Parts: sequence; structure tokens; C-alpha cells
Amino acid sequence: MNDTHSFMAPVPLDKAYRLINHGRTVLVSARHDGVENVMAAAWACGLDFMPPKVTVVIDKIARTRELLERSGSFVLQVPTVAQREMTYQAGTLSLHNEPEKLKLAGVELFHMDGVEAPLVAGCSAWLACELIPEPHNQQQYDLFIGQVTAAWADNRVFHDGRWHFEDAPSELRSLHHVAGGHFYAIGEAFPRTDNEI
Amino acid sequence: MNDTHSFMAPVPLDKAYRLINHGRTVLVSARHDGVENVMAAAWACGLDFMPPKVTVVIDKIARTRELLERSGSFVLQVPTVAQREMTYQAGTLSLHNEPEKLKLAGVELFHMDGVEAPLVAGCSAWLACELIPEPHNQQQYDLFIGQVTAAWADNRVFHDGRWHFEDAPSELRSLHHVAGGHFYAIGEAFPRTDNEI
Repeated sequence: MNDTHSFMAPVPLDKAYRLINHGRTVLVSARHDGVENVMAAAWACGLDFMPPKVTVVIDKIARTRELLERSGSFVLQVPTVAQREMTYQAGTLSLHNEPEKLKLAGVELFHMDGVEAPLVAGCSAWLACELIPEPHNQQQYDLFIGQVTAAWADNRVFHDGRWHFEDAPSELRSLHHVAGGHFYAIGEAFPRTDNEI
Repeated sequence: MNDTHSFMAPVPLDKAYRLINHGRTVLVSARHDGVENVMAAAWACGLDFMPPKVTVVIDKIARTRELLERSGSFVLQVPTVAQREMTYQAGTLSLHNEPEKLKLAGVELFHMDGVEAPLVAGCSAWLACELIPEPHNQQQYDLFIGQVTAAWADNRVFHDGRWHFEDAPSELRSLHHVAGGHFYAIGEAFPRTDNEI
């Protein structure tokens, strides 16, 4: 036990998920049979490099899940600090009991040729995905796997193949959810230097 | 197309994973038959609240994967800004061809009763996990699912059930990988206020 361990404290299991909750928050959008919806999700993750694949966890109560399962496609997008209230509302309101959800949350949609799901305006990145059906994962774990078929980013903050939050307008920073609508923004950059081993 | 769309640029598919790569980086540790190892992983994610479950993607070339599969358990830990060089080395060096990996990377291990995998000293959080065997996910996607059986955090930065990066020593901030050893730290806090809708 060194000095660090003196601060080590148990975390109750019902709060343990919060220890790794602060990946960047995403918005998931889908459309089926003329119905469009958008929800926020904290649990989205890379799965493969090429072809690129992603995972996202979507609860059975989410209307977006039904649209995604029926259409076989969805868009993951990365919302910004400027969109944090919209993101919170998109994760709180439900289209099941609030037909005006998107309007109330302030979600503005647009469309790209060849992409069935709508895209959310004002985000910093968009990944158009085709669902790779995995019924066991979907039923047992609420876990969905998508293959990315097209991607776009705001070139003020993502260019030359990587994020450049440090040089971009601060309102374009990504959101990292803590709990209950409290977010952190992405912060200081630590570039790798040659004098490190 | 509004003003935001004028900045929308396509991202090559081989760089698309980087759009959601900046969840917090974790270290994965495991032990089997007296061999201990630690690796860095960018693709770890929450999967369920209670009982808490997590996912982590681990390539077939990783020695840690073999230890995890054989022991059926692992620890996910959240490294800090102070540990960014160690984290980069833990993700770059391989125990397969570098028997002194942990020493070279500067990894210090400790152990907790009832947890087979070693824990990495100096991290801000630790989640002890039992592997939920899912052979199809493991083979097809390199995707591992764990149930969290115990968790701890540094109580200077995680207390009262959530992160408090804004009030903690700055070297305890989490790391968010961009590419090639370049990291961002977690940044500014945006608490939710009552005057928001």
C-alpha cells in the first residue's frame, strides 16, 4: 500500500457503472415507416477498425430501439457542449408518451443521400451504421452492433484523421456524462512528445 | 443545410473509429498460473446498471486476453493523467516478446483479497470483473463481457456516487485517447441547474 492506496474506497455496486460512464455521450437516431426519433446514449463504443464497427446499448423501453430494429440501420452522432441541454432532453423525454419530443428537446434533423436514419444538426461527427443482427446480444444485453458505412465530421474540430478539440471553438467539445444531466467537456490535450521513452 | 453543415466533411472509413475513440482509456489486468499482465484498452463500456456489467474489446494478439480467458476474471481500472506514459507503454509493449513489460512500462501492481487479477497502483478506479463467457462474441468480435463483483475508487476524485474531477488534484483526471499516444484529459464541468427546462 503506497500513498495512493490510502485514498482507495469501496464503491457500491449500484454506482459502479458510473466509474466508466464518462466515455463521450452519443445521440442515436433511426427512422422506420415515417417515424423518426433520437435518443442519448452513454454506452457506445468502438468495436473494430476496418471495416469499422461500433456497439451501443439501447434499453427495451426506447422507441428508437424499435425503429432501429425494424429498419436495420441507425446513425451515431457526437453532440457538443452547445447541445448539452438538448442531449439531456433527448435522453429523458420519450416519444412513447411525448409525440412532440424532438421539438421540445430542440432537435433539428437533416438527411443524407443513401442514409435512412436522420442526422442531428449541430453535432461534431456522424456515423451511419447498418445493424449487424445479433439477436442474443440484443435480447440478453440490449447490445447492438453496427457496421459503419459512411462517416462525417465537423472539419473545424476533426481533421487530418483525428480530433483537434484544442484548436476548435470551445462549444464543439464533446460531452461526457457523469450522472443526472451533469456533464464534463473534453479537456486539456497531452500530445505525445519525442523525448518520452 | 444551416451554418453547421457547411463544415461537415466526410471521414475516411479507416479513420471512422476515431470519432468515438475518446471514451476514457482503461487498463485491463489479469492473472493465470502465476503470470500477470496489464494492457491498455480504448474500447471499454458500460453494459448494465445492476448487477453492473461491462464490455471490453481485446485483440487476439494480446497476452492479457489469454490470461483473462483462462482465469475467467479481470480487473478494469481507470488510469490518470499522471499515468499517461505508463498507459501508452502498457498499450504498446507486449509480454509476448518483452518479459519485462510491466517493469519497463512502470506498472506497479497490488492485490485485493478475493480478486484473482492484480490491480494497478495509482489508478483512480478499479472494477473487479468475472467473465460472462460468450464464445461467439469473443471469437467473432473480440468482445468480452464482465460482471462487476467489486469496485473501488480514489475518494479524492470519486465520492458520493460520482466523479468530482473539478475538485480533485488535476493529475487524477481521466485519459481519453485520440490516436498514437495523444490523449485528452477530462475537462470542464457543466453541472445541471434548476433554471434549465
